[in-house]
Amino acid sequence: MKIPDQPKTSIVIFGATGDLAKRKLFPSIFNLYRKGNISEEFAVVGVARRPWTNEVLREKVCEAVTDVFDVEQDKLDRFVNHFNYLPFDVTGKESYHELKKQLTQLEGDYNIPGNRIFYMAMAPEFFGTIASNLKSEGVTEANGWTRLVIEKPFGHDLSSAKKLNEDIREAFNEDDIYRIDHYLGKEMVQNIEVIRFANAMFEPLWNNRYISNIQITSSEALGVEDRGGYYETSGALRDMVQNHMLQMVSLLAMDPPIRLSTDEIRSEKIKVLRALRMVNGEEVDNYFVRGQYGPGIIRGNEVPGYRSEKNVDPNSKTETFVAGKLLIDNHRWAGVPFYIRTGKRMGLKSTKIVIQFKELPLNLYFNKNQKKIHPNILIIHIQPDEGISLVLNGKKVGPSGETTPVQLDYSNDGIDTVNTPEAYERLLLDCMLGDAANFTHWDEVELSWTYVDEISKGWVTSTKQIPLYDSGSMGPKEADDLLGKDGFQWWPIKEV
Amino acid sequence: MKIPDQPKTSIVIFGATGDLAKRKLFPSIFNLYRKGNISEEFAVVGVARRPWTNEVLREKVCEAVTDVFDVEQDKLDRFVNHFNYLPFDVTGKESYHELKKQLTQLEGDYNIPGNRIFYMAMAPEFFGTIASNLKSEGVTEANGWTRLVIEKPFGHDLSSAKKLNEDIREAFNEDDIYRIDHYLGKEMVQNIEVIRFANAMFEPLWNNRYISNIQITSSEALGVEDRGGYYETSGALRDMVQNHMLQMVSLLAMDPPIRLSTDEIRSEKIKVLRALRMVNGEEVDNYFVRGQYGPGIIRGNEVPGYRSEKNVDPNSKTETFVAGKLLIDNHRWAGVPFYIRTGKRMGLKSTKIVIQFKELPLNLYFNKNQKKIHPNILIIHIQPDEGISLVLNGKKVGPSGETTPVQLDYSNDGIDTVNTPEAYERLLLDCMLGDAANFTHWDEVELSWTYVDEISKGWVTSTKQIPLYDSGSMGPKEADDLLGKDGFQWWPIKEV
Repeated sequence: MKIPDQPKTSIVIFGATGDLAKRKLFPSIFNLYRKGNISEEFAVVGVARRPWTNEVLREKVCEAVTDVFDVEQDKLDRFVNHFNYLPFDVTGKESYHELKKQLTQLEGDYNIPGNRIFYMAMAPEFFGTIASNLKSEGVTEANGWTRLVIEKPFGHDLSSAKKLNEDIREAFNEDDIYRIDHYLGKEMVQNIEVIRFANAMFEPLWNNRYISNIQITSSEALGVEDRGGYYETSGALRDMVQNHMLQMVSLLAMDPPIRLSTDEIRSEKIKVLRALRMVNGEEVDNYFVRGQYGPGIIRGNEVPGYRSEKNVDPNSKTETFVAGKLLIDNHRWAGVPFYIRTGKRMGLKSTKIVIQFKELPLNLYFNKNQKKIHPNILIIHIQPDEGISLVLNGKKVGPSGETTPVQLDYSNDGIDTVNTPEAYERLLLDCMLGDAANFTHWDEVELSWTYVDEISKGWVTSTKQIPLYDSGSMGPKEADDLLGKDGFQWWPIKEV
Repeated sequence: MKIPDQPKTSIVIFGATGDLAKRKLFPSIFNLYRKGNISEEFAVVGVARRPWTNEVLREKVCEAVTDVFDVEQDKLDRFVNHFNYLPFDVTGKESYHELKKQLTQLEGDYNIPGNRIFYMAMAPEFFGTIASNLKSEGVTEANGWTRLVIEKPFGHDLSSAKKLNEDIREAFNEDDIYRIDHYLGKEMVQNIEVIRFANAMFEPLWNNRYISNIQITSSEALGVEDRGGYYETSGALRDMVQNHMLQMVSLLAMDPPIRLSTDEIRSEKIKVLRALRMVNGEEVDNYFVRGQYGPGIIRGNEVPGYRSEKNVDPNSKTETFVAGKLLIDNHRWAGVPFYIRTGKRMGLKSTKIVIQFKELPLNLYFNKNQKKIHPNILIIHIQPDEGISLVLNGKKVGPSGETTPVQLDYSNDGIDTVNTPEAYERLLLDCMLGDAANFTHWDEVELSWTYVDEISKGWVTSTKQIPLYDSGSMGPKEADDLLGKDGFQWWPIKEV
């Protein structure tokens, strides 16, 4: 997609004093500015409860930017002058009136045609209130477009997500709501679509005739750290599966859209979620495995088990690991399991997708002395390394006539890495440009909560104990059994 | 293929004082010995005209081996003791009687069950005489098997090849004749078969629905050097196309054999040659391009044109370069051109196969700002680098949404290289084991000469001038036009 004119917009950041604003938003906006993706014609209004001033905010923005970039002071000064701060009471009408006034003023000062982004960088309990007030006090009445950006999590189950959605839909159209799933901003997640549809050789193979199974691993080495309180109410299923894992599944499984437009891509992704075979009641334990990390040793350091973490119930049954087998009941994927696993305190931090192709039709062919021929596998490295690998069989060097797996690698690393924009930067720009392809549509949110809620329900009634796994391992043995009973195994996830 | 018991055989080398024996055969036999592929139970009789003694031959073998390997003197001494020399008159019965006597003696000494390999490492004019005498004087009457190994060239056209074949067939069965095409001994040529048939993902794509064209380049940087006399009677067509290039074409194009046995593989290769569309008379200039190298500069040194080389006619019309378009008229390949090119004094020494896949069915898909999407290509690096590359499209890093070619590489280089056996070593071992898959069957020789003879005939009557190309270039412009008129281009051949 060609970048048209530089977008001209105001951005209102709710939660401007928070961590997300500081670590992600300020540096991202600066980087867009530095690279010329946005011009001088923009303004940012930071709002939050604290009684900061413009000067304080600008000071914080400077710090945030210089933490990440080497910048000339001149350029930075010009940049931070676009930032204003407004102490804000989300329930008080006055705040909205003041915000409206400031926006109008800034639009004049910076020649901005009334485009407004409202970025919710704060806890979700006030999203409804804010949306409702933005509308009732006329802040969404602008000459240009108004868009709402919402950080995850979007609800904690289907009913809370519905409630939240109804609240914000009072003030914004579905088309103007940008629900962030920050995985969709990742370079290699966006690359899934390109790999699949810009290569003539993959589409003919991308179905149940040639693919045996697909494995998606998203592992964290860290534990819950200081987020124990939040995590107790969430767990790995809600925190990772409902959004990121199901998004990757749908990108991998979707039919080729008739064109690469937001609507067409979303429509195909939604069809995948609709084709997901629901897992109910007692079946849950056959398709999903929970785990919780016990103590262990990571890189030589003893680490506590989940139940000993701060703000965690010592008898907690919250899962810090989940593995699942998903089936997609359509012509393309019938019989091909999509295995997912995600968790904390695992052996390494890594997100990888492994596509395992079927065995040779004649596997007697080359295995005179070999038990088995290695299947072809395609690996998409999402993070921290970015790249593609393909494992083929080659001839073992020498006269034996045996085959040996050979791995063809492409890595995004090298000169590109330094220029790789952060996911947030990309998503912010997409929002400014009105490209919602990499954001989550309500239908996706609804379908994925519907799927995930059934798992949660099954777990509530399940009599199965939640297994502990050692910190630093790749999860409980039950996760291996999940594939083992289908005759498969998790392909090892290595640091590259 | 598992190596069964170590083969036990005598080897008679005709032309033991020659260059081939010294540079290739002695080191190869030693390496088989060193690696335990053959045991102590072997003997070599070197024969040639010169009045050498056993001691002289053994001295030469030592030199040849130590030129290539670091060897303990002990081991080398034990090795060369297996070598005897016999001054030989190929037309004199006496020589054959003496050879027979020596072989019987050595078979006793080394406990060899009467297996005999006759290796023709000399000019072909006496092959018939030798074969005939071996039979008439009873040298081929052994307790075990007898096999004949023949170096290329096998004739210089169909009728001379037939004559030669009839001569040797008087003394040997077709199954016992091992016609060397040393390309078939190359690691990566043998790998073609493995890549195609040991990878589930390629066979579904390996046809005219997905492959656009296939390009085979075998380029030499050297000129004819001191082989001008031979080359004048041969030219690139006979020297390279009739054997190596057509062998690679048939390995790439054959249908999957029902099993990986010599007979089944040969049978499929022969079917390809039978399906080659013959190019006759005036058509030749539409399908084949000749060239002859003029002077030029290679790596900073001025080099002479072909017509100024030693033993070359100053008005020579011998081609030192040939490019061709081959069509294979069967269901799999209808409409897919196989382009070949080979020549001397080209830009670099390299043998590579490029398989170009067809364009995307919807190539409007990703090319919003791009003229064209790069096609998928698979590159098989035969020599000097060995490996596989696959060029796919990935997402250009950053927000543009464009695609960019990404190359996935696998290289045989690294630790394996030191162990890579020379082609000769592999072929020798194959012959000892009775595995003729990597040798040329008479039917292949016959069909390829039939094809190539038509090209030669067409050239004799063609009024087209033979174009000169600069030394150091990739051949004459006409070779580019050959693809250009089909809408294709030669993919650049680079040193890796």
